[in-house]
Amino acid sequence: MKYCFGVDVGGTSIKMGLFTMDGEILDKWEIVTRRENQGENILPDIAASLKAKTREREIDLDEIKGVGIGVPAPVTGAGIVKNTANLGWGYKEVSKELHEMTGLAVQAGNDANLAALGEMWLGAAKGWDNIVMVTLGTGVGGGAIVDGRPLVGANGAGTEVGHVCVNYHETRKCGCGKTGCLEQYASATGIARLARVRLAEDDTPSVLRGQEISAKTVFDALKQGDEVAEEIVEQFGAYLGHGLANLAIIVDPAVIVIGGGVSKAGDIMIPYIKKYFLNKAFFANKETEFMIAKLDNDAGICGAAKLIIDN
Amino acid sequence: MKYCFGVDVGGTSIKMGLFTMDGEILDKWEIVTRRENQGENILPDIAASLKAKTREREIDLDEIKGVGIGVPAPVTGAGIVKNTANLGWGYKEVSKELHEMTGLAVQAGNDANLAALGEMWLGAAKGWDNIVMVTLGTGVGGGAIVDGRPLVGANGAGTEVGHVCVNYHETRKCGCGKTGCLEQYASATGIARLARVRLAEDDTPSVLRGQEISAKTVFDALKQGDEVAEEIVEQFGAYLGHGLANLAIIVDPAVIVIGGGVSKAGDIMIPYIKKYFLNKAFFANKETEFMIAKLDNDAGICGAAKLIIDN
Repeated sequence: MKYCFGVDVGGTSIKMGLFTMDGEILDKWEIVTRRENQGENILPDIAASLKAKTREREIDLDEIKGVGIGVPAPVTGAGIVKNTANLGWGYKEVSKELHEMTGLAVQAGNDANLAALGEMWLGAAKGWDNIVMVTLGTGVGGGAIVDGRPLVGANGAGTEVGHVCVNYHETRKCGCGKTGCLEQYASATGIARLARVRLAEDDTPSVLRGQEISAKTVFDALKQGDEVAEEIVEQFGAYLGHGLANLAIIVDPAVIVIGGGVSKAGDIMIPYIKKYFLNKAFFANKETEFMIAKLDNDAGICGAAKLIIDN
Repeated sequence: MKYCFGVDVGGTSIKMGLFTMDGEILDKWEIVTRRENQGENILPDIAASLKAKTREREIDLDEIKGVGIGVPAPVTGAGIVKNTANLGWGYKEVSKELHEMTGLAVQAGNDANLAALGEMWLGAAKGWDNIVMVTLGTGVGGGAIVDGRPLVGANGAGTEVGHVCVNYHETRKCGCGKTGCLEQYASATGIARLARVRLAEDDTPSVLRGQEISAKTVFDALKQGDEVAEEIVEQFGAYLGHGLANLAIIVDPAVIVIGGGVSKAGDIMIPYIKKYFLNKAFFANKETEFMIAKLDNDAGICGAAKLIIDN
């Protein structure tokens, strides 16, 4: 076997990559996610695009180990999705259907788990085999790799770290219906809310005043030495550090990778997270290393490819 | 291969069992844990006892798949212990040393992880392969089984659930040096403390007044319909249910098994735990089943035997 495909299905686009077995990305491309009619075109579109690519590159089917595919939903070990928030799918046997359409072996997984697998294979956590990745975007997602393999769980819902409770006194509801979820404080929208609340508390001067408030403007202000921005980032660091400490006590990772749009602020955020992590970490987890993700939007296709390679 | 041994090393005694490969316990016995001189006799004593048993039963070494051994400390995937609180050992290559002493294949693991594996193999969670076991004794321990295998982690410290933070406002310290650990509320000593604090609050009549307070007397009072005891168990259930919800969000188990001395109170405790679990559980984990452990003190030797069988 010389090649494999990695596919990362998102709500607006589907990213795809052609990989060698040792992790070289030979080609990558995107197609639109057609969510209409319960997303009935998504898998056929992927199959057609993969077929077109094999023809274009003159690759024989028997040179291809298979297709790994990441989906934004819980995916069971058997490649079954029970429901999706963003694709229109209800119950769908993803691995089986895509296999029937392509003739290729297919392994499906949760997109956040596969992003973690990608960062372990080719990214920030290269060389480790027990890692956690937390993705700070509009929401907070996460994936854990235990002994080199994604922690899938009984329902395919392993490592939904955004919904770990980090504040038992919160009264506002998270999108999931619970209160005090990590996502309410460590997502891009959560950070912006922390900022608005802090700015409304008093009149302390800040470069943030009069600006549109976002996670990016908060971290930009921090880099300029803004004290109010630092207070906001301290709060973010406390919630995220505490949540990750509870996660580390369970999964015992060597490395925690921080990814997603918020992580583009870079290494400057790590001390704020680590300080509170160490405060609540179990002694055996104190050496856990923190890193910013490296693969950006490619993490998902890389992890998907690794999933089929390891199978 | 017809047989294997399961060994469970505790601070006062070492439990041992001879198993068939399909899980019949042919024999079980105990020896004393000699902790003096940094526990230097522990592994030789085990090796001698296993040898004596094979002679007594006229079993050939080549009929034995090997020895699984559980240790009350973090144990890495390679069978290495870095330190122990109760055995006197510092750094010790458990699997390697016991192999050299016995000539048998050896697999070592953390005792709480192996108790979980035992309950999955022969106990309450028989038939599942994604489970969590939480052990409520003097402290709170735990083990997770992911896809049939113990979650070991980078440092062998996976699933130290007793030290998950469930109360960010606690000021009293746990034995581990942190504050707000689950162990401070859900262990036998934690429950007794919750009881003493509640009884001191006012003069509400209770059968607990004038008794020696323990987890057992609290649950006995609950069974008699004592209202103060019920309030205490509500508090216990809230902390444990919240901690297990955070754990389930990470590990996504089909079943949570409650073991240890406190669990002898039986099924009466489950509704109190489950109520708070459901309050903080992610939607994908709402179907998680709760069960009381079945194997009692045999869980450790059963899991140890299963570890070597699966290797």
